[in-house]
Amino acid sequence: MNNLNLAIQFFFQLAVILGACRIVGLIAKRFGQPQVVAEMIAGVLLGPSLFGLLAPQWQESLFPWDPKQSSRDTSAYLFPVSQLGLALYMFIVGLEFRVDIVRKHLKSSIAVSASGMLAPFILGGALGYLLHRFGGLFPQKTSALEASLFLGASMCITAFPMLARIIHFKGLNGTLMGTVAIGAGAIDDAVAWCLLALVLASFDSDMSQALRSIGGGLGFVLLVTMLLRPILERFRGLFVDPAGKLSESGLVLALMLMSLGAWFTDSIHLHAVFGAFLVGTSIPRGEIHSGVIDRIQPLTVALLLPLFFTYSGLNTRIGLLNQFWLLGICLAILVVAVLGKWAACSLAAWLSGLSTREAMGIGVLMNARGLMELIIINKGLERGIISYELFACLVIMAIVTTLMASPLFDRFCHAKDSQRQTHNKL
Amino acid sequence: MNNLNLAIQFFFQLAVILGACRIVGLIAKRFGQPQVVAEMIAGVLLGPSLFGLLAPQWQESLFPWDPKQSSRDTSAYLFPVSQLGLALYMFIVGLEFRVDIVRKHLKSSIAVSASGMLAPFILGGALGYLLHRFGGLFPQKTSALEASLFLGASMCITAFPMLARIIHFKGLNGTLMGTVAIGAGAIDDAVAWCLLALVLASFDSDMSQALRSIGGGLGFVLLVTMLLRPILERFRGLFVDPAGKLSESGLVLALMLMSLGAWFTDSIHLHAVFGAFLVGTSIPRGEIHSGVIDRIQPLTVALLLPLFFTYSGLNTRIGLLNQFWLLGICLAILVVAVLGKWAACSLAAWLSGLSTREAMGIGVLMNARGLMELIIINKGLERGIISYELFACLVIMAIVTTLMASPLFDRFCHAKDSQRQTHNKL
Repeated sequence: MNNLNLAIQFFFQLAVILGACRIVGLIAKRFGQPQVVAEMIAGVLLGPSLFGLLAPQWQESLFPWDPKQSSRDTSAYLFPVSQLGLALYMFIVGLEFRVDIVRKHLKSSIAVSASGMLAPFILGGALGYLLHRFGGLFPQKTSALEASLFLGASMCITAFPMLARIIHFKGLNGTLMGTVAIGAGAIDDAVAWCLLALVLASFDSDMSQALRSIGGGLGFVLLVTMLLRPILERFRGLFVDPAGKLSESGLVLALMLMSLGAWFTDSIHLHAVFGAFLVGTSIPRGEIHSGVIDRIQPLTVALLLPLFFTYSGLNTRIGLLNQFWLLGICLAILVVAVLGKWAACSLAAWLSGLSTREAMGIGVLMNARGLMELIIINKGLERGIISYELFACLVIMAIVTTLMASPLFDRFCHAKDSQRQTHNKL
Repeated sequence: MNNLNLAIQFFFQLAVILGACRIVGLIAKRFGQPQVVAEMIAGVLLGPSLFGLLAPQWQESLFPWDPKQSSRDTSAYLFPVSQLGLALYMFIVGLEFRVDIVRKHLKSSIAVSASGMLAPFILGGALGYLLHRFGGLFPQKTSALEASLFLGASMCITAFPMLARIIHFKGLNGTLMGTVAIGAGAIDDAVAWCLLALVLASFDSDMSQALRSIGGGLGFVLLVTMLLRPILERFRGLFVDPAGKLSESGLVLALMLMSLGAWFTDSIHLHAVFGAFLVGTSIPRGEIHSGVIDRIQPLTVALLLPLFFTYSGLNTRIGLLNQFWLLGICLAILVVAVLGKWAACSLAAWLSGLSTREAMGIGVLMNARGLMELIIINKGLERGIISYELFACLVIMAIVTTLMASPLFDRFCHAKDSQRQTHNKL
């Protein structure tokens, strides 16, 4: 295909993707679901799971897809743009990340997150082992240990950005429930990503690569927190114009640092989102970080992030789950994910002295897997750790746990109640 | 190359592109040149013209380029993103376009633009004919008529968005000089694009395609101005939230319309920028259009537009101009471009009663070819109308005429003088 046809196709794809996300969004809104959930679903619907089932030829011609990745198909150009959208989004999450809040309630957050992580990890790990042994749901190359670690890690995931958004949306910022949930979510995600790094490193089988991944990752965290953050803080002038506002070259500098971070963590075989997130936490706070957010968030959320959901959805083949035992496994994964996370988190929160209502709220919020799960399983699929069948199961798990969050939260913790709890404001 | 390596490469390319644009930008600033000029030059420097000359292997490994377009090289994914950046930028230009101003001074604008267009078109067309006959600078497939039309059209180009930006930057909005220049620039560009459409259509050699291009283009203009604009104006509510501000779904709707416009004009073999620009002019004015600009401009200008300049620069091989006669032709093109545009525009403005100073200012501004020239010649190269050698000559012409604009303008029309001329404010 030549460049002219590439561009025609790309603009039409864009229009279809944006339209689909909006239509699903309107339906989702009626059920009290946030837009991000709608986009996760819209991506799957545009792929072989629905559109490709109803009109295979249309789907094929609109989104030509070559899993062998040998020619100029949609995936060749959708992938870099979708990764750019993802990196920008995680950069924003890093910009919004408040180290101070997590530090303040570190103890209770650790209590909730640790207990709410062990359960899903052990359950997920056990299920991974069983599926590897009996299910045939992992490619040959994947060992039993890697299967356990990967499924365990993917169960540990908490949709940290979504959790933060729901808490903000419900006006729970600064409440005990909100603060503990955000802190616990951040810790959970960090640990899950470290586990993923371990799996990816072990999967590369050569030990030097494993060391490079883990050592490089730790080194990068130290570099960013110990060196980059204070340096940027000292040279705030680089980011601002004479009036003290973020300048255009300040914005470009921030984007350049983000690209370098994403490139580095990608090149040591972790994931671009790590680097983008970490660099985001290091940008000086105040006018600068809020200016960067204001300028990159709208286009990222409206245009680029939906491309990632579509990319992920085009890889999802729910039609592969065409046998009863596969549906059974899908259900088992879902039950393990929900039980391991929701029940364990709520129990831990309740035992640590929170009210039943607050404990239930935290459990429900921590249970949503959202975007983060899609990232981790896309990485697993891309590296050949999991099969397309297991990928489809995990996509369903991610969507269902995310769909559950908002209505269940409203059911257990009415907005009214949460407003009454203002004495908990910290 | 697999997707993992694609992404690593993409993020590193991003960091290099953003860095190069900033460094050249800092140098350009010292000489009073705007950032957009710096980015045009940075793109060329990153390509085979400088970076590839100094360190061919590094350049090759950083920006792998396959002109046969058969594999997953940089151009396969850089092209769609760069087109997206360009479409978004032209969408912004359309959003900022003020039909009322052009309408108000239609007569004097037409006078300046018509005379300032005939000269470059005739001179360019004659040069095109000569080069086709004697220079061998056009591929075999290109006829003498097409060569004349193409070179004539490309001489007519005025960097309309840049002209608008310089006028805004110098505080000349609303002055007689500023208004006439903007109006004339807009008309010039519109006519040049129509000529390009004619060339492209004739180049397709089958008449039905030519009719589809011209008819489709005219139909689209009518559709947008007669139908889309009043409909969007009537349904302003679709764009705003209850508080009357642009909503997130309003932004997505605008982006969807832009994608559809870009797709349509691309698919009738014109160019995506037409559709994006036209749709931009149809978005309801006021809170809505300024909200859309605010949200998409920062990331588009800081991140996506530099990708277009790089894409264009990677296609530029100034090294091809390695013979004296080629350098001579390059010089001839430059002289014809400057004489035809600057001299003719200034003369027309002067004859229509403007002061010498204002006439010179208008001529200098109209002479800058900027981004628009790069778009038109990239299209010519992509469709095989011009050779790589002629492309390189035209890139140099575009850069030099753009570089001239700011210092010459300052020389002939000091900022002080222009402030004194406030009695000319309309």
